[in-house]
Amino acid sequence: MKTIDQALPAQVIRLRPANSHKGTFGRVLIIGGNPQYGGAAIMAASAAVYAGAGLVSVATATVNRSALHARLPEAMMLPYDDPSLPALIQSVDVIVLGPGLGTDATAQQVLTTTLAAVTPEQSVIIDGSAITLIAQQHLTVALPKAVWTPHQMEWQRLSGLAVAQQTPTSNAAAASQLAGTVIVKSHRTEIFTAADSFLNPLGTPAMATGGMGDTLTGILAAFIAQFGHHAGSICAAVYTHSAIAEQLAQDHYVVVPSQLIAALPAYMAQQAKK
Amino acid sequence: MKTIDQALPAQVIRLRPANSHKGTFGRVLIIGGNPQYGGAAIMAASAAVYAGAGLVSVATATVNRSALHARLPEAMMLPYDDPSLPALIQSVDVIVLGPGLGTDATAQQVLTTTLAAVTPEQSVIIDGSAITLIAQQHLTVALPKAVWTPHQMEWQRLSGLAVAQQTPTSNAAAASQLAGTVIVKSHRTEIFTAADSFLNPLGTPAMATGGMGDTLTGILAAFIAQFGHHAGSICAAVYTHSAIAEQLAQDHYVVVPSQLIAALPAYMAQQAKK
Amino acid sequence: MKTIDQALPAQVIRLRPANSHKGTFGRVLIIGGNPQYGGAAIMAASAAVYAGAGLVSVATATVNRSALHARLPEAMMLPYDDPSLPALIQSVDVIVLGPGLGTDATAQQVLTTTLAAVTPEQSVIIDGSAITLIAQQHLTVALPKAVWTPHQMEWQRLSGLAVAQQTPTSNAAAASQLAGTVIVKSHRTEIFTAADSFLNPLGTPAMATGGMGDTLTGILAAFIAQFGHHAGSICAAVYTHSAIAEQLAQDHYVVVPSQLIAALPAYMAQQAKK
Amino acid sequence: MKTIDQALPAQVIRLRPANSHKGTFGRVLIIGGNPQYGGAAIMAASAAVYAGAGLVSVATATVNRSALHARLPEAMMLPYDDPSLPALIQSVDVIVLGPGLGTDATAQQVLTTTLAAVTPEQSVIIDGSAITLIAQQHLTVALPKAVWTPHQMEWQRLSGLAVAQQTPTSNAAAASQLAGTVIVKSHRTEIFTAADSFLNPLGTPAMATGGMGDTLTGILAAFIAQFGHHAGSICAAVYTHSAIAEQLAQDHYVVVPSQLIAALPAYMAQQAKK
Repeated sequence: MKTIDQALPAQVIRLRPANSHKGTFGRVLIIGGNPQYGGAAIMAASAAVYAGAGLVSVATATVNRSALHARLPEAMMLPYDDPSLPALIQSVDVIVLGPGLGTDATAQQVLTTTLAAVTPEQSVIIDGSAITLIAQQHLTVALPKAVWTPHQMEWQRLSGLAVAQQTPTSNAAAASQLAGTVIVKSHRTEIFTAADSFLNPLGTPAMATGGMGDTLTGILAAFIAQFGHHAGSICAAVYTHSAIAEQLAQDHYVVVPSQLIAALPAYMAQQAKK
Repeated sequence: MKTIDQALPAQVIRLRPANSHKGTFGRVLIIGGNPQYGGAAIMAASAAVYAGAGLVSVATATVNRSALHARLPEAMMLPYDDPSLPALIQSVDVIVLGPGLGTDATAQQVLTTTLAAVTPEQSVIIDGSAITLIAQQHLTVALPKAVWTPHQMEWQRLSGLAVAQQTPTSNAAAASQLAGTVIVKSHRTEIFTAADSFLNPLGTPAMATGGMGDTLTGILAAFIAQFGHHAGSICAAVYTHSAIAEQLAQDHYVVVPSQLIAALPAYMAQQAKK
Repeated sequence: MKTIDQALPAQVIRLRPANSHKGTFGRVLIIGGNPQYGGAAIMAASAAVYAGAGLVSVATATVNRSALHARLPEAMMLPYDDPSLPALIQSVDVIVLGPGLGTDATAQQVLTTTLAAVTPEQSVIIDGSAITLIAQQHLTVALPKAVWTPHQMEWQRLSGLAVAQQTPTSNAAAASQLAGTVIVKSHRTEIFTAADSFLNPLGTPAMATGGMGDTLTGILAAFIAQFGHHAGSICAAVYTHSAIAEQLAQDHYVVVPSQLIAALPAYMAQQAKK
Repeated sequence: MKTIDQALPAQVIRLRPANSHKGTFGRVLIIGGNPQYGGAAIMAASAAVYAGAGLVSVATATVNRSALHARLPEAMMLPYDDPSLPALIQSVDVIVLGPGLGTDATAQQVLTTTLAAVTPEQSVIIDGSAITLIAQQHLTVALPKAVWTPHQMEWQRLSGLAVAQQTPTSNAAAASQLAGTVIVKSHRTEIFTAADSFLNPLGTPAMATGGMGDTLTGILAAFIAQFGHHAGSICAAVYTHSAIAEQLAQDHYVVVPSQLIAALPAYMAQQAKK
């Protein structure tokens, strides 16, 4: 298992080409946010915008529209039960499925619609309740550009490994059974690609607060949208999330996701100049 | 009556353990916010998030969802008349009952549901209208981890002591008739536990503005969730609330609750480093 | 006509008494904000909170609830067509009637309800559309603590004086026909009490933007609620509004009301220390 | 083709006359924001307010009211399908038609209503979906004060020129077939008036993010409303938008529209002092 190098973000976060437009930096769609957990989709979308994705849309429960636009007018919004969801899915480059989705019948329907609409060329970050639903139903997701982002309990549901059994070796073995990349989130997050495995050396207990995982999904989506779908982008996103949190934790007892999100453009500018 | 020592916050607000997760820092549920007083629940929840509670949910009137998420996407939201409220109550560590709840039939029903669902192991901060309802109906609340937060008029209703009669001695006697801890809020707040009584030496008239009490309940909930249910946590929460207000009051004629809340992570980081 | 002295704010904005509570600093009710002009009531209420009023409520169209609480959880909210409006009116110290109220049948009903509910002991700031409605119907408002805040066109409707005829002398004569105090807003605002008249020496064209008048009403309400209903409070409120705007205009081409409101606590703290 | 001179903003952005009022700085109406793209209208309106327009209204889908007022209480709001839209259009100086309008039947109806209501004396900025609708239907818009703001794909639809064919010479020829001024947005934006053509020398790839075009329309509207409808105002608005973005891009990897909008009053104050 390789430790992510502190030089990686500066290698991945490139100076932008002069002749570019919104499309150059990718289209991201966040699918999640039921009436109880609407904030999760808002935080994921905010992270994607502030991490530089070109265009960000959110498919969420209708009741979340006002709060989304009040915080983030930069994002577009479609009710997640709208018949045009499949068409929207097919128009984007990166999909985040799961933040605040829940596990009820509506969530199940959104999951089914999404998995039917995505194509193997698309990156799909599978998070939170979507992992739980997939695990419960023993679904096989054959998407080569899947990125799974379970925390330890979700990873137990998905892999069958109890938290105490989640060693790097057993995690790697279980991850190899899944298509794509697996990010097992803990205070020292591990990343498993088909070819390799990586350890995130950063992370602070000040990050242990609701919404941090949603925020990571938005950063991952923006990095893949801008810098490509490869291990370097994914590891740089994980590292960036923790590096900003460590900076903020120097004078914040808890790092609230909204504050981490606001700090993204400045951190990324520093890296791009290196 | 002991005066809270200025060294207490630094003793209570500990450096977080490295290997931790959201659950380590506790689950808080704010129950309150009717259609007229929705802001009270939003301020209590915001204070809980910014004071470091691991996960914060709000049970409130449905009409308050948009405003809650627009200000605080970090919190989860359930309508307070949802049938799953008892299950949510039983899944958390600390409950705040009362900010902006009102005293009508809906408020009464929420109060009844909550008191029936909580267990003696749970901390329950009883605030505002919930105190008024309990006093009006001469209810006995037999919860050992209750924390009552009346202001002087609410304390009069609950204890039968007119404001002019609220001396430390008579307050202590009345508090001993109630289960748990009583915080009698005034410009010099007093705290009565089963074993002891404490005086808050801080407080500024710049705090005399709507929402300050709601903010205190959120800080109390977060401190109990993170640092345990004991007199030290409770006194440190009361002291922290006033200490931040005194700092802000040096150059703010009035300390608006939203500004006090935003200052929590920095104040707590300073204390944790001491 | 006397020019307001620059020392006045420091004389009016007193250090707060240590032993005080929310009620000490007054209850303010903003009545306004129809579905088209909801922001006006939000700005007036925000100014009242940030200028130090103890408790602020807003009676407005139901559709404005979410935006009000998203910006200002510190305020309470009642639909302005709720049957309990008269009771709420009678429970407060200062009423602002008119920001964004409009002139349709609902506005008329709110005006009628309000004028029937207020008592001569209450301060009532009459602004915007409320002035227009009263002028159109040739109503006589016999409230000794009325404060009228017309801009020049509204003053024309109310006084019958065309803008070109609005000299200090003719304004004073027309104002003496009305109960209470008249504030004729222009780039050099004039204030007419029963006994005297005053000129505001400050004001900047950077203030010529939508919402500035609403903001003034909130400051007026908070000053009267805290410092009493007299010419000094009223003149200090007008001066404070312009003084902050002049400070901000040094490096802002336009002073947006939200920015002026945010600067109130610091300005008032500076004055109180003098 | 002339390059916009860096001295232009300071020439256009004048010190405001002392004796002025809201009307002096113009009335702007933003028409756009369907249920999916509500943020676009919010960003355009925010830019208009912060760039100094005297009064700003928004005609948008009813579902966008809460988010608009939560972010921008300074603006007024009318549902875009309200029968009073034509009267509102006729009461303003500058209209922005198109941000987030979409292309469905409702959008078509709003377009038809608007084009029927505007008069040749009014400035109309035609943006986004409005351009697409007009191109699809081969409509001729005979408004001398039209300002078209297509990006390259919209310009292809409107002019028939494929992106690769969009040279200054062919753009000028195509623009001369349209009434008014054409702003072809790219990383080096070109501006075509009846008499002349201009190149914007500024612009950064940090601007390539959703909402930047909406933000430009608001700045254009405010500049025309304050400084008049002429090539200087229009070029200064385009230059200002890019100049602020370049400043922010020095330490922000992506310039989020909300941050650019917040920086408008300070940039304009600097220019006005030169």
